[in-house]
Amino acid sequence: MKSFTTTRRVDFGDTDMAGIVHFANFFRFMESAETEFLMSLDLSVTGRDAEGRWGLPRVAASCDYYKPARFMDVLTITVTVERIGTKSITYRFDFSNQQGEILAVGRITAVYCRTTGFDRMESEEIPAEVRAKLEGSA
Amino acid sequence: MKSFTTTRRVDFGDTDMAGIVHFANFFRFMESAETEFLMSLDLSVTGRDAEGRWGLPRVAASCDYYKPARFMDVLTITVTVERIGTKSITYRFDFSNQQGEILAVGRITAVYCRTTGFDRMESEEIPAEVRAKLEGSA
Amino acid sequence: MKSFTTTRRVDFGDTDMAGIVHFANFFRFMESAETEFLMSLDLSVTGRDAEGRWGLPRVAASCDYYKPARFMDVLTITVTVERIGTKSITYRFDFSNQQGEILAVGRITAVYCRTTGFDRMESEEIPAEVRAKLEGSA
Amino acid sequence: MKSFTTTRRVDFGDTDMAGIVHFANFFRFMESAETEFLMSLDLSVTGRDAEGRWGLPRVAASCDYYKPARFMDVLTITVTVERIGTKSITYRFDFSNQQGEILAVGRITAVYCRTTGFDRMESEEIPAEVRAKLEGSA
Repeated sequence: MKSFTTTRRVDFGDTDMAGIVHFANFFRFMESAETEFLMSLDLSVTGRDAEGRWGLPRVAASCDYYKPARFMDVLTITVTVERIGTKSITYRFDFSNQQGEILAVGRITAVYCRTTGFDRMESEEIPAEVRAKLEGSA
Repeated sequence: MKSFTTTRRVDFGDTDMAGIVHFANFFRFMESAETEFLMSLDLSVTGRDAEGRWGLPRVAASCDYYKPARFMDVLTITVTVERIGTKSITYRFDFSNQQGEILAVGRITAVYCRTTGFDRMESEEIPAEVRAKLEGSA
Repeated sequence: MKSFTTTRRVDFGDTDMAGIVHFANFFRFMESAETEFLMSLDLSVTGRDAEGRWGLPRVAASCDYYKPARFMDVLTITVTVERIGTKSITYRFDFSNQQGEILAVGRITAVYCRTTGFDRMESEEIPAEVRAKLEGSA
Repeated sequence: MKSFTTTRRVDFGDTDMAGIVHFANFFRFMESAETEFLMSLDLSVTGRDAEGRWGLPRVAASCDYYKPARFMDVLTITVTVERIGTKSITYRFDFSNQQGEILAVGRITAVYCRTTGFDRMESEEIPAEVRAKLEGSA
């Protein structure tokens, strides 16, 4: 399975009055890292092809928080494809700070979907070439 | 011109490490108050009609900050239609806290637009019935 | 165990380009509902007492998404205390829309902590009166 | 006066249901660019020194929007110090996309403040060495 590492500097607006990164923002950091990961494989989280628009809406997201992240921290985020099902992908995200401390571990499960009309989506098998890239066998 | 008053309780996640509402969040509060204002007039910020989708994208937004807002404050937000042009609307938003202190004054200018294709919008005259409602003459 | 129900109207800015509420925003909605729940019990997520500042930082958060929420939806959010440990509280959040469809189920686990110095927190037993209120036995 | 250029890739979660970057997010992008600018001068938006904590809370923010920014766009953001008063700094932010189109022009005015007690701030003259760095005369 493929993995990928990126970094993210914590912005002032990412923090809350506890002086640390607001817990919900880790999910935004995960999504941003996922996008960079997919870009590195020449993939995306949404697109249009001959059959119309497809996307990867999330069906589950979770995060365990071990230590706080703070303004100006440069977080290292490692994305790993933890599982690929017929229609779904589960990513794992490991967050650490510049001292090498593990701050959080998160997961997102996304499902490959086709837009089948106005405001309608249907899940579909992950195309073979997408699967091959995520598995690192492409 | 019409005006309208609503309230908003400050959430923990609206604050930043300075212990006060992050300045960018006032723009979200403005948008939410605008929506409630439009709902009160049986209008919306986006919709579909016989001619397709229309919307009110913003062309300008500003805010002057006088005093900080804090977690658990219940902000009073008064929306006033400050100006209606041929195609644009400027709202003014007055924020005060439960002590009656003025915290901030913001403005948003939106332009009435039609979606004219994939990712294409064109400005258009504000329909007469929308104008009448905003002017309070309906 | 106590439970509590509130509502939240979806703002335009809560959505993303998929036309639905961005998955990370459900965590903000959970936090806001938690605050209202605690207020209903005359509790809070942070405060100062004779011994200094205390808070309820999150150690885990998760959400399963079943159906999308959209702009202008009025979400019903039911908060239930699912588990109270010696130092931690796990809430469950059930989201449904105005058609009664279940959209998402989320969980947050928070730990009762004392600020023990600049940027230092230590977990502590949940005070008996807080526990009693959350258990509904107060 | 100093100026500085950085870039920012638009995340999926930065967009709204109109398919473009939500207008309020430009203010977050400005703040992030400001931080990088200050870092490049060995300055920060907040800190502690012998006299306690100081910060640069915003007293005004504005943005004019010319063209939308979209998911995956890499925005070029140029920060310019437009004015330095005795106690305040006004930055200008020019946003363009990879096609060189100007998308937005924003401004933030911040005031140099000292924390003078719990939840109390007072404005103060900008220290000479900070001023010199911002003016580019240091």
